[in-house]
Amino acid sequence: MINRLRPLFRPKSIAIVGASNNPRKRGYQAIQSLQRDGFRGSIFPVNQKEESILGLPVVPDVADLDNEIDLALIATPATSVPGILKICGEKKIRSAIVLAVGFGEAGKSGKKLQEEIVKISRDNDILIVGPNTSGMFNLHHQMNLTGIRDIPKGSMAILSQSGNMALSLITEIKANSKAGFSSYVGVGNEAGIQFHEYLSYFKDDPSTSIIVMFVDGMRNGRKFLQVAKETSDKKPIVLLKSGRSEKGRQAARSHTGALAGLSAVSKTAFNRAGIITIDHSDELFPAAESLMNFAPLRKNRTGIISDGGGHSALAADALADYGIMVPDLSPELRTKFRTVLPTTHAIENPLDLAGTSDANPGVFADCVDVMIEDSRIDVIMIVGLFGGYHIRFSESMLQLEEETAHRIGKAVRRSGKPVMVHSLYASHRPSPLEILKEYGIPVHDSIDLSAKCISVLDEYGKHLSISQDKTDFVLKSEGKQKPAVLRIFKKALEEKRKGLLETEARDALRLHGIPVCDYQLATTEDEAINAARSIGFPVAMKIVSKDIIHKSEVGGVLLNIKNDDSVRDGFDLLVARARRNDPGVKINGVLVTPMMPPGIEVVLGVTQDPQFGPVIMFGLGGVMVEVLKDVSFRVLPLGRFTAPTMLNEIRAHSLLDGFRGKPPCDKGALTELLVQLSDFVEAYHFAIAELDLNPVIVYEKGLSVIDARMFLQ
Amino acid sequence: MINRLRPLFRPKSIAIVGASNNPRKRGYQAIQSLQRDGFRGSIFPVNQKEESILGLPVVPDVADLDNEIDLALIATPATSVPGILKICGEKKIRSAIVLAVGFGEAGKSGKKLQEEIVKISRDNDILIVGPNTSGMFNLHHQMNLTGIRDIPKGSMAILSQSGNMALSLITEIKANSKAGFSSYVGVGNEAGIQFHEYLSYFKDDPSTSIIVMFVDGMRNGRKFLQVAKETSDKKPIVLLKSGRSEKGRQAARSHTGALAGLSAVSKTAFNRAGIITIDHSDELFPAAESLMNFAPLRKNRTGIISDGGGHSALAADALADYGIMVPDLSPELRTKFRTVLPTTHAIENPLDLAGTSDANPGVFADCVDVMIEDSRIDVIMIVGLFGGYHIRFSESMLQLEEETAHRIGKAVRRSGKPVMVHSLYASHRPSPLEILKEYGIPVHDSIDLSAKCISVLDEYGKHLSISQDKTDFVLKSEGKQKPAVLRIFKKALEEKRKGLLETEARDALRLHGIPVCDYQLATTEDEAINAARSIGFPVAMKIVSKDIIHKSEVGGVLLNIKNDDSVRDGFDLLVARARRNDPGVKINGVLVTPMMPPGIEVVLGVTQDPQFGPVIMFGLGGVMVEVLKDVSFRVLPLGRFTAPTMLNEIRAHSLLDGFRGKPPCDKGALTELLVQLSDFVEAYHFAIAELDLNPVIVYEKGLSVIDARMFLQ
Repeated sequence: MINRLRPLFRPKSIAIVGASNNPRKRGYQAIQSLQRDGFRGSIFPVNQKEESILGLPVVPDVADLDNEIDLALIATPATSVPGILKICGEKKIRSAIVLAVGFGEAGKSGKKLQEEIVKISRDNDILIVGPNTSGMFNLHHQMNLTGIRDIPKGSMAILSQSGNMALSLITEIKANSKAGFSSYVGVGNEAGIQFHEYLSYFKDDPSTSIIVMFVDGMRNGRKFLQVAKETSDKKPIVLLKSGRSEKGRQAARSHTGALAGLSAVSKTAFNRAGIITIDHSDELFPAAESLMNFAPLRKNRTGIISDGGGHSALAADALADYGIMVPDLSPELRTKFRTVLPTTHAIENPLDLAGTSDANPGVFADCVDVMIEDSRIDVIMIVGLFGGYHIRFSESMLQLEEETAHRIGKAVRRSGKPVMVHSLYASHRPSPLEILKEYGIPVHDSIDLSAKCISVLDEYGKHLSISQDKTDFVLKSEGKQKPAVLRIFKKALEEKRKGLLETEARDALRLHGIPVCDYQLATTEDEAINAARSIGFPVAMKIVSKDIIHKSEVGGVLLNIKNDDSVRDGFDLLVARARRNDPGVKINGVLVTPMMPPGIEVVLGVTQDPQFGPVIMFGLGGVMVEVLKDVSFRVLPLGRFTAPTMLNEIRAHSLLDGFRGKPPCDKGALTELLVQLSDFVEAYHFAIAELDLNPVIVYEKGLSVIDARMFLQ
Repeated sequence: MINRLRPLFRPKSIAIVGASNNPRKRGYQAIQSLQRDGFRGSIFPVNQKEESILGLPVVPDVADLDNEIDLALIATPATSVPGILKICGEKKIRSAIVLAVGFGEAGKSGKKLQEEIVKISRDNDILIVGPNTSGMFNLHHQMNLTGIRDIPKGSMAILSQSGNMALSLITEIKANSKAGFSSYVGVGNEAGIQFHEYLSYFKDDPSTSIIVMFVDGMRNGRKFLQVAKETSDKKPIVLLKSGRSEKGRQAARSHTGALAGLSAVSKTAFNRAGIITIDHSDELFPAAESLMNFAPLRKNRTGIISDGGGHSALAADALADYGIMVPDLSPELRTKFRTVLPTTHAIENPLDLAGTSDANPGVFADCVDVMIEDSRIDVIMIVGLFGGYHIRFSESMLQLEEETAHRIGKAVRRSGKPVMVHSLYASHRPSPLEILKEYGIPVHDSIDLSAKCISVLDEYGKHLSISQDKTDFVLKSEGKQKPAVLRIFKKALEEKRKGLLETEARDALRLHGIPVCDYQLATTEDEAINAARSIGFPVAMKIVSKDIIHKSEVGGVLLNIKNDDSVRDGFDLLVARARRNDPGVKINGVLVTPMMPPGIEVVLGVTQDPQFGPVIMFGLGGVMVEVLKDVSFRVLPLGRFTAPTMLNEIRAHSLLDGFRGKPPCDKGALTELLVQLSDFVEAYHFAIAELDLNPVIVYEKGLSVIDARMFLQ
């Protein structure tokens, strides 16, 4: 299947609307760049005043173009865009890049203008990049419409909502790496083509081996997860998002008019989709470079080679922050090191070459050669002065350092194992470090960055290897619903109720096998007494009314009722309290349930996230959820492998294993309940707005749902 | 008072022991460097074989030196050092730098060698730097004994346990800054002169305006805190320590033989001493540079000026991570911006100049000029392309960018307010950015680093301004002890007991006014009944025996005893259980206490930290301490301002304010108890090893210590 974005990324002909003879204008730079780079298709400048631009004939209006055009670069002001797009539509131009600002990010009138061009593009079947974009390039098609010159060609694709972030990546790659880019798209306001559509193109683009993303906000998070999951199984995605802070979200909104920043759940969702999420902008390029140059790690056992004890300790600390192992060396490896190091030299991991390397930096390669062959070492981190010995000690060492760099590079090629190099001379870019880069070895002046780079190789490796639910993030409801549940929902909606009665919620859940505790609805005192007798004393009693959402706030719950008389009194009391609160209240009856024995109380909830759809939450009841906010989230659906990770993710997870004489709780049953709830919500995801099981009491064996609340959309 | 380290830092004469004619040897480089830099004192090379080195006459042995020598640089192998030091002693040489490795960091024999030189230096009153050090320099005395050339002179002092970290700072300052260094000491194994002694010198050194430290481990943490507190009131201390991770601590130990890494309590202790602690090595120099160049902040309201929305959002996020405010702009400021920005331009904080700055980067200075005058903005962060507009757009912009840089620099000088600049062209070092550096404006290629630099100015400002206990970290016990408490301790020690009986611990605490709950010791059943009657039922009963430390493990605690018969039975049961556990047990009696009503349970504890001495711990009883490890620590003594910060520091602090109908607890009483406990431990700090109040029940008004355990040293 040919991707629908192919004409955009590989156009045969481009119209430059707003072409110019002013070298500072994008309408000039684009043409200049296409010509300079040897774009093989046709270029059609459009300008009302000029006759010729850079040797090309100019037409005054898009309407005057008679050739078949794949792509229009629209470099004119916002207000002119709707008119131009309409003519593009008439001329069957299939895609357009709208550079102008003044759309969704620019207040009410801008939003209106954006809606207008979205409608025109739909009506006319035009793919729109932007608006409010810095443009795009595909260097493998000799097409660079960004106005940025001298971009190195390679296999890294950039998908960014910030032109400056792209510029930053380009500046970094030129300064610190020998790598290059395949394509870039400035997503801008995402009014036309959305993130997941671009990603889908890069997924199948043979010129692209890795995708680097910067995201302000996103219009369709779930679709994005679906495509990201497919993509990350083939090539890595590295993503930086802004909006961790309220002020950051504000800035993001005024930047691209994104409706909202990405919610708190995005990090775990992205992780499940195999995306490598980066928190700090200065880590984005180094992380991407490492993932591009090296295979993902299956294990993360790291050997550190340094030339100073202080650096050794700092490197070990930095790796520990990311959960990377720095294992003790095997006896075999120690013996091998003896062949290349003086007998007095301590052989540990970190391996500190201080004293030995000063006179002979070649020892770095000796040690890499030994270490890289060891099957219990997966990656090597070099820390210290390497590359700058000739600066620090004697210029005469330069040749030896260069040879050493070649030896290290060859060891990497031979073994396929990653080596990361920290050098405090990195910013000098001395030739030995440039040689390392030629071999694809990342060089940093920050120990923390080198450690971060190892951690992303580890994270991507884990994604590819560990047993996890191979979810495609698609909610499949067909064939999973039960008519009886649909009838409950229908009845509530007919009565114009969004909130289900507790009895209805319980019935619906029970129909799907979810272990809600025993219950009976009583409409008279005698019915309540009969119910309590059949359930067995003691019981709990709760008012049931469509008008009462928060039962406990109106005194609508009675606990530990021990005999017939108390049931009778309780029934009257509940009704009286409800009436006192609201004389016109419609009471459906009183729910009688058993008093369940104590156990570990947990809370499960489902809400609809604006970007990702249904999301499930798990936490421990009481203080842990309400005060410490100690909860875990997952985008649904949830499978049998992912559910237990929710239990382990809360800080207080060890409480589930028993504490102070309390027995451990039945984690198997809890996992089962999470999966059941996920299945339930998947079946009716179009209908359910919110669902809470609070509390659920988990026992040493089994569990019981004590209370259930459900709201429809 | 003249600092005793003055002869070391400002020697009039230096002996170079192990002087050499080999330019690669330290014994050559040191002399070469002294001569090149114009050292004004005398240099005496010592070498058995050479007659002349670098034009200076050589003596074969230290014994042959007849002049008065202030400092000996000993550049010979470890085993020769004890002999040389002895002769130095005879020759009244007052200080020595021992470069050699092979001491405390190098196994048993090394440790022994280190002990030997420590003894010699004590016996002969020689100050020793090192061993295992890269040396030292004092550029204001034209003395550089490190072998590192071309170090820029300035006012930053380095106190480091890693020579590579010092080299790293020197490399960074040359590459990224116009600043320079005053002195450096490689602390090495800290066998002779300790951290706090060097720090004390720098405190009073007029050439030093800031001290940068790297620490593996420390021999006397409390003394260091004392000096650091005095120092940080005058000039900033920025400190990076290794050993966050177990592997990092291992590496630190094998590096300088430091007994232990710094404990978990160090970060909060350093903070109270006014030290700026840095977690990542790449933040060390930028943080120090900012503190050197700018006055500390009193408020942290930051204005962000960027040229792209993506960068704006990232900058806001980065500042939020450090709790830095990015306030909305005042109407007055907005009006002023209107005079320098186009009418269509959105005026927000972050201020995004995209669109306007492309054609005129001078607008950065226009906006700085406006913003820096506003009394509600304390610091400005510039983010984006500035300094590289002539690279990105047109070489012709260079002059304008240079002028703009001068204008920004002048605005900083005029206002005294800090400006931090992020530029994605920082690593190119273009002239506009070099101009900014001339004005002392830090320039980074990382948004996160710029944010970190603002945060340290804020942190240091807070240290200087906020009301906190002006502790000097000195434990003052004189005049605070009570004879009755000393008698309790004496009795226990006479009986060879480290653990006090619960009654003894309670008596001691009560003598200092600590509200332990009512208690009576009963040695017979009848005494127990009388005790229970006078205390009032219900009561708790606990076995008291010097042989039983963990009472509950032998069933030695009975709760909720309601009448005489139960007291009698309980007495017998406790004694029987104790005997069953250990037939030879010596029983002192049974403690009778009231059953206190429920409240919020907290735990207070005191332990002796190997480096900092007595440390107090606070947490919430039960799960919070035992499972979630949600506790706060402070080095003692603790005053009335610091104690409440311990309450606020625990994650679950809001539980102290009441939860789910529970009333708030008496935080005033709890603060008082923390201070009382601190005073108590201060009085007997030489005697107490460990002390636990667990639990303490805190009520809406008042509190009660339910159980107390105390161990002597």
